Amino acid sequence: MDPERIRTILERYKAGSLNQPQALDSLSSLPFEDLEYARIDHHRALRKGFPEVIFAENKTPEQTTGIFERLAASSDRVLATRASAVTAESVCASIPDVRYHPLSRCLVLDRRSNESRIGNVLVICAGTSDLPVTEEAALTADLMGAGVHRINDAGVAGIHRLLSETEKLGKARVVVVVAGMEGALPSVVGGLVAAPVIAVPTSVGYGASFGGLAALLAMLNSCASGISVVNIDNGFGAGYQAALINRLPDMPR
Amino acid sequence: MDPERIRTILERYKAGSLNQPQALDSLSSLPFEDLEYARIDHHRALRKGFPEVIFAENKTPEQTTGIFERLAASSDRVLATRASAVTAESVCASIPDVRYHPLSRCLVLDRRSNESRIGNVLVICAGTSDLPVTEEAALTADLMGAGVHRINDAGVAGIHRLLSETEKLGKARVVVVVAGMEGALPSVVGGLVAAPVIAVPTSVGYGASFGGLAALLAMLNSCASGISVVNIDNGFGAGYQAALINRLPDMPR
Amino acid sequence: MDPERIRTILERYKAGSLNQPQALDSLSSLPFEDLEYARIDHHRALRKGFPEVIFAENKTPEQTTGIFERLAASSDRVLATRASAVTAESVCASIPDVRYHPLSRCLVLDRRSNESRIGNVLVICAGTSDLPVTEEAALTADLMGAGVHRINDAGVAGIHRLLSETEKLGKARVVVVVAGMEGALPSVVGGLVAAPVIAVPTSVGYGASFGGLAALLAMLNSCASGISVVNIDNGFGAGYQAALINRLPDMPR
Amino acid sequence: MDPERIRTILERYKAGSLNQPQALDSLSSLPFEDLEYARIDHHRALRKGFPEVIFAENKTPEQTTGIFERLAASSDRVLATRASAVTAESVCASIPDVRYHPLSRCLVLDRRSNESRIGNVLVICAGTSDLPVTEEAALTADLMGAGVHRINDAGVAGIHRLLSETEKLGKARVVVVVAGMEGALPSVVGGLVAAPVIAVPTSVGYGASFGGLAALLAMLNSCASGISVVNIDNGFGAGYQAALINRLPDMPR
Amino acid sequence: MDPERIRTILERYKAGSLNQPQALDSLSSLPFEDLEYARIDHHRALRKGFPEVIFAENKTPEQTTGIFERLAASSDRVLATRASAVTAESVCASIPDVRYHPLSRCLVLDRRSNESRIGNVLVICAGTSDLPVTEEAALTADLMGAGVHRINDAGVAGIHRLLSETEKLGKARVVVVVAGMEGALPSVVGGLVAAPVIAVPTSVGYGASFGGLAALLAMLNSCASGISVVNIDNGFGAGYQAALINRLPDMPR
Amino acid sequence: MDPERIRTILERYKAGSLNQPQALDSLSSLPFEDLEYARIDHHRALRKGFPEVIFAENKTPEQTTGIFERLAASSDRVLATRASAVTAESVCASIPDVRYHPLSRCLVLDRRSNESRIGNVLVICAGTSDLPVTEEAALTADLMGAGVHRINDAGVAGIHRLLSETEKLGKARVVVVVAGMEGALPSVVGGLVAAPVIAVPTSVGYGASFGGLAALLAMLNSCASGISVVNIDNGFGAGYQAALINRLPDMPR
Amino acid sequence: MDPERIRTILERYKAGSLNQPQALDSLSSLPFEDLEYARIDHHRALRKGFPEVIFAENKTPEQTTGIFERLAASSDRVLATRASAVTAESVCASIPDVRYHPLSRCLVLDRRSNESRIGNVLVICAGTSDLPVTEEAALTADLMGAGVHRINDAGVAGIHRLLSETEKLGKARVVVVVAGMEGALPSVVGGLVAAPVIAVPTSVGYGASFGGLAALLAMLNSCASGISVVNIDNGFGAGYQAALINRLPDMPR
Amino acid sequence: MDPERIRTILERYKAGSLNQPQALDSLSSLPFEDLEYARIDHHRALRKGFPEVIFAENKTPEQTTGIFERLAASSDRVLATRASAVTAESVCASIPDVRYHPLSRCLVLDRRSNESRIGNVLVICAGTSDLPVTEEAALTADLMGAGVHRINDAGVAGIHRLLSETEKLGKARVVVVVAGMEGALPSVVGGLVAAPVIAVPTSVGYGASFGGLAALLAMLNSCASGISVVNIDNGFGAGYQAALINRLPDMPR
Repeated sequence: MDPERIRTILERYKAGSLNQPQALDSLSSLPFEDLEYARIDHHRALRKGFPEVIFAENKTPEQTTGIFERLAASSDRVLATRASAVTAESVCASIPDVRYHPLSRCLVLDRRSNESRIGNVLVICAGTSDLPVTEEAALTADLMGAGVHRINDAGVAGIHRLLSETEKLGKARVVVVVAGMEGALPSVVGGLVAAPVIAVPTSVGYGASFGGLAALLAMLNSCASGISVVNIDNGFGAGYQAALINRLPDMPR
Repeated sequence: MDPERIRTILERYKAGSLNQPQALDSLSSLPFEDLEYARIDHHRALRKGFPEVIFAENKTPEQTTGIFERLAASSDRVLATRASAVTAESVCASIPDVRYHPLSRCLVLDRRSNESRIGNVLVICAGTSDLPVTEEAALTADLMGAGVHRINDAGVAGIHRLLSETEKLGKARVVVVVAGMEGALPSVVGGLVAAPVIAVPTSVGYGASFGGLAALLAMLNSCASGISVVNIDNGFGAGYQAALINRLPDMPR
Repeated sequence: MDPERIRTILERYKAGSLNQPQALDSLSSLPFEDLEYARIDHHRALRKGFPEVIFAENKTPEQTTGIFERLAASSDRVLATRASAVTAESVCASIPDVRYHPLSRCLVLDRRSNESRIGNVLVICAGTSDLPVTEEAALTADLMGAGVHRINDAGVAGIHRLLSETEKLGKARVVVVVAGMEGALPSVVGGLVAAPVIAVPTSVGYGASFGGLAALLAMLNSCASGISVVNIDNGFGAGYQAALINRLPDMPR
Repeated sequence: MDPERIRTILERYKAGSLNQPQALDSLSSLPFEDLEYARIDHHRALRKGFPEVIFAENKTPEQTTGIFERLAASSDRVLATRASAVTAESVCASIPDVRYHPLSRCLVLDRRSNESRIGNVLVICAGTSDLPVTEEAALTADLMGAGVHRINDAGVAGIHRLLSETEKLGKARVVVVVAGMEGALPSVVGGLVAAPVIAVPTSVGYGASFGGLAALLAMLNSCASGISVVNIDNGFGAGYQAALINRLPDMPR
Repeated sequence: MDPERIRTILERYKAGSLNQPQALDSLSSLPFEDLEYARIDHHRALRKGFPEVIFAENKTPEQTTGIFERLAASSDRVLATRASAVTAESVCASIPDVRYHPLSRCLVLDRRSNESRIGNVLVICAGTSDLPVTEEAALTADLMGAGVHRINDAGVAGIHRLLSETEKLGKARVVVVVAGMEGALPSVVGGLVAAPVIAVPTSVGYGASFGGLAALLAMLNSCASGISVVNIDNGFGAGYQAALINRLPDMPR
Repeated sequence: MDPERIRTILERYKAGSLNQPQALDSLSSLPFEDLEYARIDHHRALRKGFPEVIFAENKTPEQTTGIFERLAASSDRVLATRASAVTAESVCASIPDVRYHPLSRCLVLDRRSNESRIGNVLVICAGTSDLPVTEEAALTADLMGAGVHRINDAGVAGIHRLLSETEKLGKARVVVVVAGMEGALPSVVGGLVAAPVIAVPTSVGYGASFGGLAALLAMLNSCASGISVVNIDNGFGAGYQAALINRLPDMPR
Repeated sequence: MDPERIRTILERYKAGSLNQPQALDSLSSLPFEDLEYARIDHHRALRKGFPEVIFAENKTPEQTTGIFERLAASSDRVLATRASAVTAESVCASIPDVRYHPLSRCLVLDRRSNESRIGNVLVICAGTSDLPVTEEAALTADLMGAGVHRINDAGVAGIHRLLSETEKLGKARVVVVVAGMEGALPSVVGGLVAAPVIAVPTSVGYGASFGGLAALLAMLNSCASGISVVNIDNGFGAGYQAALINRLPDMPR
Repeated sequence: MDPERIRTILERYKAGSLNQPQALDSLSSLPFEDLEYARIDHHRALRKGFPEVIFAENKTPEQTTGIFERLAASSDRVLATRASAVTAESVCASIPDVRYHPLSRCLVLDRRSNESRIGNVLVICAGTSDLPVTEEAALTADLMGAGVHRINDAGVAGIHRLLSETEKLGKARVVVVVAGMEGALPSVVGGLVAAPVIAVPTSVGYGASFGGLAALLAMLNSCASGISVVNIDNGFGAGYQAALINRLPDMPR
């Protein structure tokens, strides 16, 4: 589960700098920080390559601010999603260099000195109404270090708007496709590109859209290959997955 | 509710060829034929322009044969859908000029002398697995007198197979689009043509297709305009509706 | 996909007025206008015979106003559906001759000089509560040039209110039937007329109506022929489809 | 919970013919017969006016036969529903005067000497495919002593087949309406009669019928008053409820 | 469909007091009153024995007031359900003797001189939270002339509260049982009484209650006989059905 | 049903201190208190070992206050769940020693002199957002006399936060696990402990969480043994069940 | 995660009987046995107090037999659920002292010398059709060492069959209640006993039972306290949970 | 849409080797092969890097064999999924070097001379019952050239079986996780690795698993980051997506 850490503990124990109870304790625990209402998983940045991300929707402004502060103390990048304006005000008051994006409701702290981005994540959005989710995906991928490109408002009812973008389509390492209503766009994109496609259904629609269920089911049943799907309106999840894929290390030879 | 009929009855009553009870009776009834287990609506051919169609799925071979015989006695065209091989055998034994189509499970009687067809109904199918439903649509429209054209296996994962058919697309008066899985094809077609599109979801798929629900919801939520939808696997309904539209009388001037 | 356009480009290229990169570019693109948050598909009016319609529900007033302005610059008819009062105020402030219909929440710009309508689209509504959806259907069909007639409050619990309208029923080229609750009206109408019926389920109801699901399922399972269905509360979609059918060109001989 | 019975026990206890433990036992129990795999509620005939009815679907032929025998020993009428041919053979071998109805899969024992029926239960069925459920309803009401009348194949797609039956409609004390697909018929009937209507959705249909869900939801959302609903395909339940209502005692004055 | 009316028209036509077009017109129409946004079915009181009831939920206060006024002009009893306080104020301002019941949101006009009630409808409610629906049922049955009795808060978690009411249970001609959450009460009541039971699921509950779906499904699947079900929260429907049953005429001999 | 009580009544009746009607009455009733809108089941404390708990969500502040007062008159512990701030104010104004917990929306009256708790109920919560439900569970178990311990924010995305708590896990007699989103935590806990696990799905999540349905289904399908489930967000139910299990009497030898 | 084991490894490592790689390996693994198609978790018996149970439904007879053999080699009790007759034959051929229970489809190996059972688990079943699930629950609890008692066929439609069993109800430490259709029985039982109730919905029913969904939802929404629920038809899970609770160690003092 | 192809056509047209109609035709079409019942998208191998894969489930053996033959004529690798034994026999009779895998129902043709695989796709499966889907994923990734590794039977009820595999987990470039029932495994894996995770829900389970819906929803709602999901039982889709990701070209510098 972290052989290096176990090895160190074993050596310190053999050397006598840890007694048995201390070794026992160390071996069965891993680092997290307890705020009572939350236990911050500082270890996650090591395991996943990116610190814990705060889902602010069901948290109080105070809880979100508290967790944000602790994460900001140990990382140069922190992200909170689905933050209300009230929560944003609270966090920004506490940490002035946090930036709030009202459309996507993201709070972003980015203290990296080196602004360079790598690779190419293409984020395509079916309609103007899907922009909030699209922005969340793009912001997340950008914060994780990906070069992000965009095609907006390319829904299948006017498919030439997509077909005219062959150059962008051909250059992408990973494609994120965001669509509500019938969710048909990922299938069309998936038929055109060899890059893996991450599909994001949105809750845009009404009636038999059932809050995005129609788009979700469509994407899960895509007849095109190379498509996987995240939760309805989960722009963050798609941006994160795309950035993980985009930064895959070179194939060892 | 048929003013002509009421007028005739009134006149016959005034003239005395009908007494009051007879007039009363005639005024509150319309012609149908009672087989005990079914009451055949011979009047339907007058109201709808096409005789009653037999849905054979939940009927016994005897019932289907009985109803088919009665309809064949008064119409030169009869259609039964979802007929099993056993039912087909029973009907064909009784009425030798009925033809059975095993793929679409349709039983067709067509005694019209004039084989000409009018107009142009284009039936597009997304995949080979959708062919049974597609055939049902095409057979129905043909039997109702429409000129029927076809584009098979034009799913969105290889969209050039559709885009290469601009000529057929441009000539259609009505388009029927049959698709399972994610049901995206009607939206793409709907974005390309000005003709009305009748979308047919099929139960082709598995898992989160939920028996065609995914395709049905996608089609109902289409972002393209000019699309309406029939029940899952209802090729008959789409072919019927398309033929009705195709044969609309010329606009009065 | 527009052979005329391709032909022109080919000729200009051969003639030298386009160089190869220009021809290449022209051949793979089609006209749309990029507002960053939206890409207006001006080509749609050519393909579909009617300009793009704005679905205002998930758009900001600024976005809707911006798109409306661009469409109004190139078309004499513009329609936005599901516009809130706030959005309506914003659009009307920018384009004074736009008219807002609060019941149906439609914004309509109609600068046609010739007010004549053709054909006969009959819009039937089951109950007073279904009027907003019904108005959306009627306004859409009217703006698309159809002659529109109406039967209001003709629900099946008092079926004589429908049966007394045989004249209107008999004259319609296309019928739109709007109903909530059990959604039975399209089946009854479908049994009476030979014209194609477009059924619109509404979310009127409570409990096991599940937001219009009951009516939607009923309409999809109609035992009458010649019925197709649009999304719950989608008056626009039904009006559009009905107008497309109504204006079908005369059958070529 | 049966004051008469309690009163008797009290009196016997005071008189000494019951000792305390016996009285205690009698007061807390009611008569049933234990077959180990079933406990037959002989008391039900007293409480409900009709003996327990056997739902044979999930029981073995042996279990159904055993329960049938015990009920036949204490009642002149016994009913088992959803009995397979195998179960029927087993029961009829044991009790020769039981009659099996294959269409409705009912097993009926009727040893009443007096064959007279009272009242008027009208059972209406929408289509030929709904006949098995319809028969179950009619058989049940008949066995409970109701006069049963029928209107078959009166679906709303040919509504004159119903409207021509005003006499039967007007004479019914209770109406059972059986319909699958869109389940519209109870609403139309409910709008025409003052008698209470018991609606039975059937699983006849396909696709978005979802095994009768569409018809069930339609009936629950009926815009007509005076309608209540039983489970999908529950002809027995509707026949039972109708017979209970039909035999309501005369109003006390 | 009203033979008396047809007979009269026929006689007047023969006698010459109606000419043919007038007779034609009369024969194909029935009396309703057109308010443009509603067509009031005055004939319903004749067909159903009770005037049309107004479902106020999706209507504007003006619409409800207008329809209420028209009905009040021709009937001594008028009922509107699901009326908001605003609607109530509007109606009461126009018709001062209308009484508003805030708990059940009913508007009741009752100008009958004779206050006597007949029969015995027992309305049982599972919990305090179900009272609004329960009141709607009781008010409806009362307005339709039924003697109404009540058992409140008799949920199955304390079943002795029901078992202690054997006298009321035994005297009822019809029983209405209102319950939310798991909806078990109708099954228990149905096992105790011979009277028909109308079950009303309510939306009381949370989580997997899914807005009353759990209670609805439970009631539809009741293992007790003699139960039929109305829509979730449809107290009106249950009260109406119960009153219809309660007032069934004495059995003809 | 309470043999002791029946025995007493029998003896008093034999001895003459009760006459027959009194005995009859006593034998068929059990103690509850009628507030008209509620019938308080004082007997429940005897049957269940804990007085009736008030579900305040669908009750008016007046109703909740009234019921709380009556229960407080006969018990030293009273609990109301899902109380709004307004209701809390009303109850606390009437009974000053009631304490309101805003996070869990519980109203607690605890007048026990002896504050000792027995046993060990471990309440584990997956995320900060699940705290309100978690608190409801913990408060309930505490009020019922259980020793309650806690592990907060131990979701499976950082599973070491759970694995580091082996000591707490090993000491628990019963475990309550509260989780939203994918609801995976109970399965992991169930694989680690021999104690029974009560799983509580929460409505925390969005999109395809469908209000907690995803977590509920996951918990019901757990591959680990020893898990049972309560309703979505039903912290009370889990705390109650856990306290019942925790206080099981010692095994008789 | 097993401090004793870690302690032993640490001591052996310090003592030199394990070198560092060996210690490293031991510390990060736990005992399981790899059959390639399955990895048998022999450690589970230590963690949970009962060996892994085989879910035979989706396994081949060979797989089930192989796993059964391995578990039988290290445990005196082995259980496989949902075993077909074919699988049973295969297992019994390999291990002759395994006993197959066809009704519940359980395969049981029980080599314990001491047949004594402790405690009191009461298993109540609503109807004869629920017996297979009920037997699975009873067999499981028995094999886990619980004293098991039974009440069969005690559905709420004849509630006296339950109310007559007060003695059994009063003596139970834990109650398992198995019911299909409307699933009302657990609520009634939960209102009568202080013992914890484990509710098992079954798929017995038809139509709107939706494969046991109706019963499941009812049980999750129970208005009685002290009820938790397992998956549809999961008799094993309920028996297991009940046995865990039943054998809870005496409360430490 | 393939600029190179357009450029060639333009040059040939200018040079005169294509006349205008030929150029026009070439510009609007792309290569596919028409078998009447299928149109084989040979171009797909160019666009996607892998030839079209045959979904055999809804196709006749003849159709599958015909398509397989055409693909085998132009590609050295062909895959058909969900092939029955009958279909397998037909295909293998026609193309002897095709290999059938009965567990996963895959038909594989692999004529590559170079058997080397690149990268590292780790396929983890929760239980023995999930093996068919797992094999489909592994076979697909292997055929697409990925090095595939496996961890079988690592369900969360014995989580040490997963935690002991840290080495395999750490080396994976992409992870596929296959799980039925509660579908919790992807969340646990996603919390442990930095590689992207493709989650595959399976239909293994019963009752409230609803054919894999429970697992699907759980995976979509995962609290771990870096997870995307494919359709229920879609092992092919996950293997394909994983192989696409695994073979991503090195990052350009």
